[in-house]
Amino acid sequence: VFEVHWDAEAAEKGGYEHFMIKEIYEQPRAIRETMSSRLAKDDSHIILDELKWTKQEMAAIKKIVVVACGTAYNAGLVGKYYLESLSRIPVEVDVASEFRYRSPLVDENTLAIVVSQSGETLDTLAALKEAKRLGAKTLAITNVVGSSISREADQVIYTWAGPEIAVASTKAYTTQLVLMSMLAIYIAGLRDTISAERSRELISGLRNLPAQLHEILEDVESIKTFAQKYGFNEDVFFIGRSLDYAVALEGALKLKEISYIHAEAYAAGELKHGTLALIIEGVPVIALATQHDVYEKTLSNIKEVKARDAIVIGIAQQGDEQIKKYVDHTIFIPQADKFLAPILAVLPLQLLAYYAAVTRGCDVDKPRNLAKSVTVE
Amino acid sequence: VFEVHWDAEAAEKGGYEHFMIKEIYEQPRAIRETMSSRLAKDDSHIILDELKWTKQEMAAIKKIVVVACGTAYNAGLVGKYYLESLSRIPVEVDVASEFRYRSPLVDENTLAIVVSQSGETLDTLAALKEAKRLGAKTLAITNVVGSSISREADQVIYTWAGPEIAVASTKAYTTQLVLMSMLAIYIAGLRDTISAERSRELISGLRNLPAQLHEILEDVESIKTFAQKYGFNEDVFFIGRSLDYAVALEGALKLKEISYIHAEAYAAGELKHGTLALIIEGVPVIALATQHDVYEKTLSNIKEVKARDAIVIGIAQQGDEQIKKYVDHTIFIPQADKFLAPILAVLPLQLLAYYAAVTRGCDVDKPRNLAKSVTVE
Repeated sequence: VFEVHWDAEAAEKGGYEHFMIKEIYEQPRAIRETMSSRLAKDDSHIILDELKWTKQEMAAIKKIVVVACGTAYNAGLVGKYYLESLSRIPVEVDVASEFRYRSPLVDENTLAIVVSQSGETLDTLAALKEAKRLGAKTLAITNVVGSSISREADQVIYTWAGPEIAVASTKAYTTQLVLMSMLAIYIAGLRDTISAERSRELISGLRNLPAQLHEILEDVESIKTFAQKYGFNEDVFFIGRSLDYAVALEGALKLKEISYIHAEAYAAGELKHGTLALIIEGVPVIALATQHDVYEKTLSNIKEVKARDAIVIGIAQQGDEQIKKYVDHTIFIPQADKFLAPILAVLPLQLLAYYAAVTRGCDVDKPRNLAKSVTVE
Repeated sequence: VFEVHWDAEAAEKGGYEHFMIKEIYEQPRAIRETMSSRLAKDDSHIILDELKWTKQEMAAIKKIVVVACGTAYNAGLVGKYYLESLSRIPVEVDVASEFRYRSPLVDENTLAIVVSQSGETLDTLAALKEAKRLGAKTLAITNVVGSSISREADQVIYTWAGPEIAVASTKAYTTQLVLMSMLAIYIAGLRDTISAERSRELISGLRNLPAQLHEILEDVESIKTFAQKYGFNEDVFFIGRSLDYAVALEGALKLKEISYIHAEAYAAGELKHGTLALIIEGVPVIALATQHDVYEKTLSNIKEVKARDAIVIGIAQQGDEQIKKYVDHTIFIPQADKFLAPILAVLPLQLLAYYAAVTRGCDVDKPRNLAKSVTVE
């Protein structure tokens, strides 16, 4: 008799060692799904028929609040940038556990957007209820159909990321970013604050993302090498400006969550106001420099940390020859619009966190002390 | 011949070992000076004659942006809470190096408040100019008469903290908080959004501060002992909710700046979304629990970190017997209104940073890599 030994979990992992790395590799598909049928064939506009907002309703919105926790909060910070830039509506991003207790300035001219992969995050659900009570229009961005948050919100748009099992969120984050960018283009369209040309440019940029993400995932050897080399440092800093800063925050959170490295992200311009004291010889600094409009300023911050003999890994757009002169290693992402670069730039950071955790022998999919969905306060 | 040997710097330090500790001890006086002639004798209102704003002008303000760097940014976070709660104007706080590059949503109905001890912080000055260019009314809060920022802003109110020499800001921060609270009461008065009773309550609370600060400074032995005991830990976390979170950020910054400990502050409710993975046996956690409206929630976060065997130092209001059951050590501050508790609660954190730096043999007044005023980008 030939006995077959198999393991349901291993089967679900589809050949990957951990759910997290499987989910990292699922991102091109997850993003394609999230965009599918939402980009007009001629790239002229975004289709979000589920929203049913009129031009009048959108014209009345005076303020947007984005409320979330953890990784979804980091996605909200990128969303703020998209929404403010394109729709010119002021956006406030708040962590749910703070928002719900601070008598927020929210009224019927406010759009409250809550973001939660599981749709069950308790603080976020409570914040959503509070926003509704104050009269706000509410919109949920979630990955789970029928979840508590999806049922509570006036409107829902789903990320079609598929089930996310690993505690450290990866494909939920990138699909939230994609959805935020589509939402911003959509709202800006309703408010006539975006040109046809800019809209088309962004939509065609979105269309390129799955192939570009795939390109990053095809060659991860250098990232793996860095992770093995620097993975035993107990402190790592991430710096960036503008959208790069928002991505830096997510990179630091990933590293903390699964590798237990004390990682911290800083707006690069704030370094001199305190954190620079911690930058000494050999401290790894991940510097994001994908944003052309603040590129020179970021470079000067990179020089500051290099002057203190930090080990600097730069994340830059392909074709950037200048950065190589100032950093120890460079990881390039495919060329993209500054709005969409975060969706690419976070991948090397996810991979760095993953391989650092593996190098350190951590339980990648189930990090200590953390749960996948935080359904308690 | 009897030769007198003396040292000008030692003389300036007035018997203290470092400027920082001298300046910490100057806070009761600095705050008294900052309030002097600005509190109506009968506690009925705040006098800020230098502002000359009319009720009509203040009614037209739709948004306040507070822009600053480092410690002054942390003061801005407390200011946001004061201004939003009392005047019900939405407030956005931004780091100057980010604000100036993000085409902020600022117009003639915006009040831009810039905060800088020296009045020479380059990014803050540039942000002020940008806000002016966009049509905002501008107000500077600074400590130096005739500084670039004081000359550039439409209006100025001075903290009367006296010269601050130590790189790590202490009395500038607490006087900025005092001024922010007075400003919030003043604006709320012009907008009729504060009751006479609440106004009187806060003003009489302000009046008590110098004596209460003095009380904290009279007995610093226990703080010194904690600093000596835990000062060699390389990682320290600060947690708090609401205003306590803002103070936690300042406590973490102080520790980083002068003792080079990797300190990080977290909104207590966000712990479960990542940072909790770093909390293991013996990690010091400074937990602020001075805010009555979120007290129970904070206590439950304290229990979470205690369950992971962290060493918890609680900062609480005098008379709080409950907290002692859940923390390893408690530092009490004199009883105060929740709005004013931050101005007291930051003192033990300043002292902790100071004594930790001394314990570690750091150059307290001139920490590595940092300058007193950041007059470059």
